[in-house]
Amino acid sequence: MAIITLTSDWGNGNHYTGAVKGALLKQNPDATIVDITHDIPSFDIMQACFVLKNAFPDFPKGTIHLIGVNTEGGIESPHLAVKYRDQFFIGADNGIFSLLFDGQDIEAVEVDVIQDSDYFTFSTRDVFVKVAVMIAGGKGLEELGHPYQSLNERYAFNPVVYPDTIIGKVIFVDAYGNVFVNIDKQLFREAGKGRNFIINFRSPDDGISEISTSYSDVVPGEKVALFGSTGYLEIAINKGKASTLLGLELNDTVTVAFNEE
Amino acid sequence: MAIITLTSDWGNGNHYTGAVKGALLKQNPDATIVDITHDIPSFDIMQACFVLKNAFPDFPKGTIHLIGVNTEGGIESPHLAVKYRDQFFIGADNGIFSLLFDGQDIEAVEVDVIQDSDYFTFSTRDVFVKVAVMIAGGKGLEELGHPYQSLNERYAFNPVVYPDTIIGKVIFVDAYGNVFVNIDKQLFREAGKGRNFIINFRSPDDGISEISTSYSDVVPGEKVALFGSTGYLEIAINKGKASTLLGLELNDTVTVAFNEE
Amino acid sequence: MAIITLTSDWGNGNHYTGAVKGALLKQNPDATIVDITHDIPSFDIMQACFVLKNAFPDFPKGTIHLIGVNTEGGIESPHLAVKYRDQFFIGADNGIFSLLFDGQDIEAVEVDVIQDSDYFTFSTRDVFVKVAVMIAGGKGLEELGHPYQSLNERYAFNPVVYPDTIIGKVIFVDAYGNVFVNIDKQLFREAGKGRNFIINFRSPDDGISEISTSYSDVVPGEKVALFGSTGYLEIAINKGKASTLLGLELNDTVTVAFNEE
Repeated sequence: MAIITLTSDWGNGNHYTGAVKGALLKQNPDATIVDITHDIPSFDIMQACFVLKNAFPDFPKGTIHLIGVNTEGGIESPHLAVKYRDQFFIGADNGIFSLLFDGQDIEAVEVDVIQDSDYFTFSTRDVFVKVAVMIAGGKGLEELGHPYQSLNERYAFNPVVYPDTIIGKVIFVDAYGNVFVNIDKQLFREAGKGRNFIINFRSPDDGISEISTSYSDVVPGEKVALFGSTGYLEIAINKGKASTLLGLELNDTVTVAFNEE
Repeated sequence: MAIITLTSDWGNGNHYTGAVKGALLKQNPDATIVDITHDIPSFDIMQACFVLKNAFPDFPKGTIHLIGVNTEGGIESPHLAVKYRDQFFIGADNGIFSLLFDGQDIEAVEVDVIQDSDYFTFSTRDVFVKVAVMIAGGKGLEELGHPYQSLNERYAFNPVVYPDTIIGKVIFVDAYGNVFVNIDKQLFREAGKGRNFIINFRSPDDGISEISTSYSDVVPGEKVALFGSTGYLEIAINKGKASTLLGLELNDTVTVAFNEE
Repeated sequence: MAIITLTSDWGNGNHYTGAVKGALLKQNPDATIVDITHDIPSFDIMQACFVLKNAFPDFPKGTIHLIGVNTEGGIESPHLAVKYRDQFFIGADNGIFSLLFDGQDIEAVEVDVIQDSDYFTFSTRDVFVKVAVMIAGGKGLEELGHPYQSLNERYAFNPVVYPDTIIGKVIFVDAYGNVFVNIDKQLFREAGKGRNFIINFRSPDDGISEISTSYSDVVPGEKVALFGSTGYLEIAINKGKASTLLGLELNDTVTVAFNEE
């Protein structure tokens, strides 16, 4: 029984999700379909990547993930099926794959599936569903298309790293107003080498110089920094909305200043 | 294994969807339940129709669709079960069935199911679920009630057609701001007979005189017209929000002017 | 085949729901997962309780409900598994259990599950999922932890009752703008003893002195009171938005004045 997930910018008040699920169930009535989200801001590859990157590792081997953001195919962004850690990802090579896998070892093919309809606005339903059903049916990637070598690199999550400073930025804000910064735990450790530090944003006098393991390490209303379930640096306010209270928005700069060695 | 879909105006922050799914699973634990949407604007039959009309054709035969909008039964809008192209539709005859099937050949019964509760505010849970479970269990429509002849016709999607002009209106706007007009491909072809045309909206100097097959037939930021996955005329902006940028709202007039013969 | 529901304040545009579903399916691929809602306002135990309380009774025996609101464990709010009417509820004892079960006969244990990760911000995924999978696999509550006696009581839904008056408040507003008051049918009957009454809110001249069984007992645009699908007093406007039109918000006072005996 295949598990197939959907991540998209379709929103929820229209027919897109229903149509894709109908098409999946028509071709594979036993599929377990999971919505990751359909609330990605329109065309926003980076948000889509953040969400999928932090959800897919929890899924079992063999799970098939459809990426319904900027799906128009073509020479510049061909439709791919990618295998990574025994899971599958189907989407257009619009930059999201390089963000998702970031130099990791993947297997990728450009899919040769011919769609039936004569318009090209709904590739998730008309192409990706077919590819997913073939993978669910046991076909190997090599049967779906021809090998694809170098992923498009159009965006980068990476922060800038100096000996005593990391300059990062806000890459996601969740529904609680928790703010996620593109600095992960490993980078923080390697750059910091155990030194004291201060995390600065907005007004530099108001930084955080400690990493917590739980929101409630501070009293309600107080700000806290932690490496939570995503592995990224997270700035939060216990029982409060950090994005609003601290005035932090997407793409705002967050720096970590380590004590000079 | 029955596939049962839900289309409603319940919204998502309350108990309605959960209660209906619970009731379905209590009576049919193997059902595959699919949310088409719960974000229909309150009481808006036309939006509900647009969404369901563009989603159901992708579902397999035997699928059962519950329509949770304006569900109060009674003499003026009895509860119906309708069979169309081997799929089933359960709802109140509030006008949506005539919109959905538009003169097509259907089989309809007024259902005789008696609800258990003594209030009448939640027919989807208390009536439609029972009907769905009976259909899923193999009962024919004739076992569920008595034949129902003429559907209520309360609304119309139809545009006005003159020899050289079609006067339509905006019937849907999706999450991208793509605008859908009540002019379908077939009507456009029959009325146009291959003539040149201009699609006008708002300022008449600013029309579109070409039909594309893909958003990216134009450069990002440029407007484009196409008959996309719905079959309806769609006005979009490549990678932009047509509704906002072109000032097009629900019910706004869109005309197609063909060259005089 | 286990049915597992999710009720949370995660919102829908992020990775939380996907991660939890992935973890559930990894450990129990046959689970049927049902979203009750993820649109609870952040940290709002009372809204979460209202929604879950009105959804769970429709689910079949054996259903397992995960409560993803204020989930941080600890001495003050330990993680519990509760059995009530042959259904299971997993969450932190932050006050929601006493609201949900309100003195009913329950079986509760504090769970002894050790989470694998070293941060404590995502208990639903890292603790509750494990507990759910153990229950789904047939383990009894007594195998999951040690008995837990007295639930935290931090909130109350209860109205104030005088001989001739009930003073209640608005506890929920649904997507239609229907307003729910913390006065249930049983209390209303017991306090009223069949007397005439007037339900007052905002301006006292404008009350409702009748209980209906259906919104359409009044003409469209007219206000109506009923005990609908929740059992709570509901103030609505037929085909209209009572919350806006009557100016009723969460926590506003609503009184029922009975004729003096």
